[in-house]
Order: sequence, then structure tokens, then C-alpha cells
Amino acid sequence: MKAGSNERMNQQLFLKQVPAGIAGPDDFEVQNNPIPELVAGQVLIESHYIGVDAALRLIVRDSDEFLFRVKPGDLVHGSVAGQIIASKNSEFAEGDYVLVSGGVQNFTISDGAGLERCDINQAPLGAWLGGFGVSGLTAYFAITQVCKPQPGQTVLINGAAGAVGSIAGQICKLAGAKVIGLTGSAEKCAWLTDDLGFDVAINYKDADWYEQLEAAAPDRLDVIFDNVGGVILDRSLKLIAMRGVVLLCGSTSQYSQETMVGPNNYIWLGTMRASMQGFVVFDYADQYAQARARMAAWIKAGLLKTVSYEIAGDVDVFPQAFQALYEGKNLGKMLVKLPAA
Amino acid sequence: MKAGSNERMNQQLFLKQVPAGIAGPDDFEVQNNPIPELVAGQVLIESHYIGVDAALRLIVRDSDEFLFRVKPGDLVHGSVAGQIIASKNSEFAEGDYVLVSGGVQNFTISDGAGLERCDINQAPLGAWLGGFGVSGLTAYFAITQVCKPQPGQTVLINGAAGAVGSIAGQICKLAGAKVIGLTGSAEKCAWLTDDLGFDVAINYKDADWYEQLEAAAPDRLDVIFDNVGGVILDRSLKLIAMRGVVLLCGSTSQYSQETMVGPNNYIWLGTMRASMQGFVVFDYADQYAQARARMAAWIKAGLLKTVSYEIAGDVDVFPQAFQALYEGKNLGKMLVKLPAA
Repeated sequence: MKAGSNERMNQQLFLKQVPAGIAGPDDFEVQNNPIPELVAGQVLIESHYIGVDAALRLIVRDSDEFLFRVKPGDLVHGSVAGQIIASKNSEFAEGDYVLVSGGVQNFTISDGAGLERCDINQAPLGAWLGGFGVSGLTAYFAITQVCKPQPGQTVLINGAAGAVGSIAGQICKLAGAKVIGLTGSAEKCAWLTDDLGFDVAINYKDADWYEQLEAAAPDRLDVIFDNVGGVILDRSLKLIAMRGVVLLCGSTSQYSQETMVGPNNYIWLGTMRASMQGFVVFDYADQYAQARARMAAWIKAGLLKTVSYEIAGDVDVFPQAFQALYEGKNLGKMLVKLPAA
Repeated sequence: MKAGSNERMNQQLFLKQVPAGIAGPDDFEVQNNPIPELVAGQVLIESHYIGVDAALRLIVRDSDEFLFRVKPGDLVHGSVAGQIIASKNSEFAEGDYVLVSGGVQNFTISDGAGLERCDINQAPLGAWLGGFGVSGLTAYFAITQVCKPQPGQTVLINGAAGAVGSIAGQICKLAGAKVIGLTGSAEKCAWLTDDLGFDVAINYKDADWYEQLEAAAPDRLDVIFDNVGGVILDRSLKLIAMRGVVLLCGSTSQYSQETMVGPNNYIWLGTMRASMQGFVVFDYADQYAQARARMAAWIKAGLLKTVSYEIAGDVDVFPQAFQALYEGKNLGKMLVKLPAA
């Protein structure tokens, strides 16, 4: 296909309305639009994979409180791994694989700013959106730069079978910590312990999950790596250890709630001289390459597994994949795998 | 009076029942008991001042969750500044002034462990329980070791007219920060700005207090020093600055609530890469002397004011003083001043 060709159409996903509850297909609208001509300096990227991120639910809320927002009528935000199929930019050639914050669509036009090259010898293209992408980097920097678990310490990962949690737990194991994962099914628990090497995995749908957690952490929790918020964060805070760290990576249980609820047990931070720490991976962008080199070595040595859960289809399957993510269907990163992949 | 003399009785305050709501006189019981004979190694301390601390309400709850608890039938916990009136311990002489965690009573027997000498040339005896005591040291270490406000940064003190907040705000001013205080009356606001040098003081009982705060902090809040929790902490979190620090010093609004409530806006910590930090002053006990020397120099130079609000009476006025504290009657530290003072 030539640059600027309008022979193919770009399937794009727009937000139709602010969702009530977990977003569903009715909240989105698919449009097929022509691809504009490239001008000098631009490249055309064909999407192969689109990342499905829980945080999307936060930025489609009817609220200007968050720093980034997708409003009804806007192209739905999404990270894309794709290939350059036409280039009028001397920095990029046809055939290059790149990551782009391009939105949920088949084709993205970019002037090259913010594009990140993917070396598919380091990890397969889909992994660049998951365990080898922002999710994996989030886990990497949060654990190695902020949580810093020590050998013998105990770490709890809330949302352990997700894209970030699954990597975070493995990196804590590499650091010598005891790792407990909380997740939502017996199948996921088995995956965490048998495939990923977690010491303990607990199904938070068990009525006695907290008692199981208490029994698994007799020396309390030096690190709580929290992706979920809500009652799980609240109750686990009662087990924070002296000078423990609570890493706030996400609050997925709250994003689709009308009123988001904070942890009543925050008062335990005081007693235990503990801290609750916000974290955004983009602050570490200048260290991504080093982190990826280290992670690639771990992957090669069989010490780290990056797992994706791929739903194949065109752009219009994205809403269904998003629902499946909130229903906890995925092990690892939820991806839409497009026909081009 | 001689050691071991039983001529005088010891008025002591016991917890009668777990309070509902703010504790009142019905929740306590006064007893007059004889003073036991001193044995070798012991000293007898006569109380001059008893500190009235909001945190007492937390430890009289019907809950073993907190690390220290006063149960019905127990002597009420309280910090005392007093004088040694009899000594069978070679380390201490009659006439020495000391601090003791002795409980709410006129006389305390101690083996000397944990006694802290008060140099009343550095600060008057009552101040050793307030701005020059644990309250002042809490402010000192929390600000200088954890919050570390920089010149030009903006600090919010929630509970600004209290024992800790009033000192914390002054130390932030010494560090060159812009200091905003939230407190509960126009009189207290005037005191903060006119007497203590706060830049802005806001009455949280004003319907538009949050809008006043937003206007006073156009560059957001680099430090939130929180003594109160509840809605004030929750709303002020929305103004936390990038990489800001929320120092959890206390949660007085929650101690007498049946169910304590956490800040729903904790999610802002994530977005802003901010942290919420628990703090307990006892961790800095080995640095108290240096801190007091520095604070004494500030006091002498007119740069720091330690203020106490004293209610005179015997041990039995303590419940009334405790109520007055929760009604916000005090400027600075609430103390009971006993007849011996």
C-alpha cells in the first residue's frame, strides 16, 4: 500500500457516551474513515496489536479531574504496536515496528514524535504492549526503584494475574522476597504459583481470603503492590509492616464506580510509619532501554515470563475485550490482535 | 513530704466505659488511692501538668487494633510534667523536674526508666508537654526530616491551631515556605496569621473553605500536614502537587467515629506521584536533645512561639479538658494545670 492511498479505510473506535458501570459495546461507536494523505515528515503505521488498559475506564468518566480525558465523540485512547507501511520521514523506514499512542484504530499517522521502536528479536511485537511494554516497565520501575523488596521480606500483589501484577510478582521473586498474589479465580491462583513461581496465591472471592492472607504473612506485609483499590486495599492495609510501602499502581475496582472510595484503614500507615506512594512509569522514560535490556536477559534465561491474552478481531472487538478485562478473563496483558498481525 | 508517706492521697482517673462519640465525664471515674511506699531505686513524682492529647480517644476505642490500648478499669494514659519529691534512686534528686508517661494522676512512682529531665531554663515546665515537648518535637521532626518544605513551596497545615500544627506551621515558615493553616474559628485564624506568621488562615467552617484554599494555593500543595483526616484531608488531597508529601500526623476527626473513614481522593496520590507518609515521633528519640537545643534557640530569638491553653484544677477536670479539646477551645497545647504547679 502506498502512502496517502485511500484504497483502504481506517476502522476507528469513538466514545459514544460516558459509560455507566463497566463500559460495554453500546458506549462505543465504530466508524470507517478514509486515511488522509501523508505530508512530508509523516509516517503511516498499521496497527497489529492494541493494548486494553483498565485505566481507560478512568479517563472516560464524566469528570475533568484527571489529567487526561476521552470525551464522547473522541477517538478512544489506546496504545498500539504496529508497523510502518509508508514513510515520508527519514528517521523511519517502511517495515519498522513501532509503539504509538495512536488510539483504537487500524492506521495512525505520526510525525515521528513519541514513536518507540520495537526490536522484535528482544520480544515478540505483542509483548511490547504487555510484559515487555508499559505494563512490564511499570512493574520493573515500581519494584526496583520504589518498593525495593529485600530478601526475606513479604510482598502482596493485589491484582496479581494482570499485566502489571504478574510481572511485579516475578521481579519480587528475583529480589528474594516471599510473594503472595491475590486474584479472582482458582485457575489464576494455580497459574501464579505453578507457572510464575509465586509462593502463595489467594482467591479474593473466597469468603476467608483475609484470614488466608493473614496466615500467609505472619511477619506482615513489607510491600503492598496495589492495582485494585477498594475493599482489598483497605483490608490488606491492616497487615502493613513497620515502615512498609504501599505502591499505588491502579485502582481498577473503583474506576467504574459512581463514587470512588478510599481505604478507611489508611490510619494504619500512621501507626506503622508506612507510606503510600503514587507512581507513574512515564517518569522513568529515559531508563526504558536499560530496563528492557535487563528484562530481555531475564526472559532469555527463563527467569521472567511475559504473558498476553489475545482476542483476535478487528477494531470493533475492542469493547468486548475491555469488558472481558473487567470480568477478569485474562492471564497477563489483554490485547486485541488485529488482522494485520 | 517524705518518701513512702501515706499522708496524702493520689487522685487518679480511670476509664469507666468505652465512650460513644466524644468522651465525656461519665466515661471516667476518679479514685483517691494511697501512695505506695517507695522501694530502692524508685522515685516519687508529683504531677504539675498533664497533657491532654486527642489520640487518647483512639486508644480508648473498643478495639485491639491499635498498638496501645486503655480499657475500662485502666488508669487513663497521659503524659505528665512534674517534680521529684522523693528519691531512692541515685540518678535523680528531690526537686528535679521530669517528664513521665505516668497517667492521669497526681503522683507517679517510677524506677527512673523512661524519665526525661526538663531544664526549665530552656522552656517553662508546661511547655515541655506542648510546643517544647512531644507535640513540638513531632512537628520538628516531621517537617525537617520528612516533609522538608523548600523555599517558595506551599504547605497546608490541617488542624493548624493545635499543639502540633501551630509549631509545624512556624517551622515551615522558617524553612521559607508559604504556609496556609486550616482551623475552626475566626479567632484562631487571626491568631495564626497575626501572632504566628502564617501567610493565610482559613476557617474550615466557612461553606467555601475549599474554594478559599484553592485560591490561596495556585501552585497546588507541596506538603499537606494532616492532623485531622476526614473530609478535610479528603478534599485537600485534590490539591496535592506533583511529588507532594502528605504527612499523616493524626486523624482527630475520626477517632470518635464508630467507623473511621479514609480519603476517597487517595487516587490523586497516584496521578501526582505523591506520597502519604505515616509518622511517629518516638523513632527520633535519640535526636530529641539536639532538636530541643535548636528550638530553644529559635524561641530565644523570637522565631518560634510555644503556646499552651491551660485548664486549672485537680485530676478530675481532665475529662472536661478533653471535651474542650474536641470542641476546639484551645490555642496550642491543651494542658491540665494541677494545684502543685
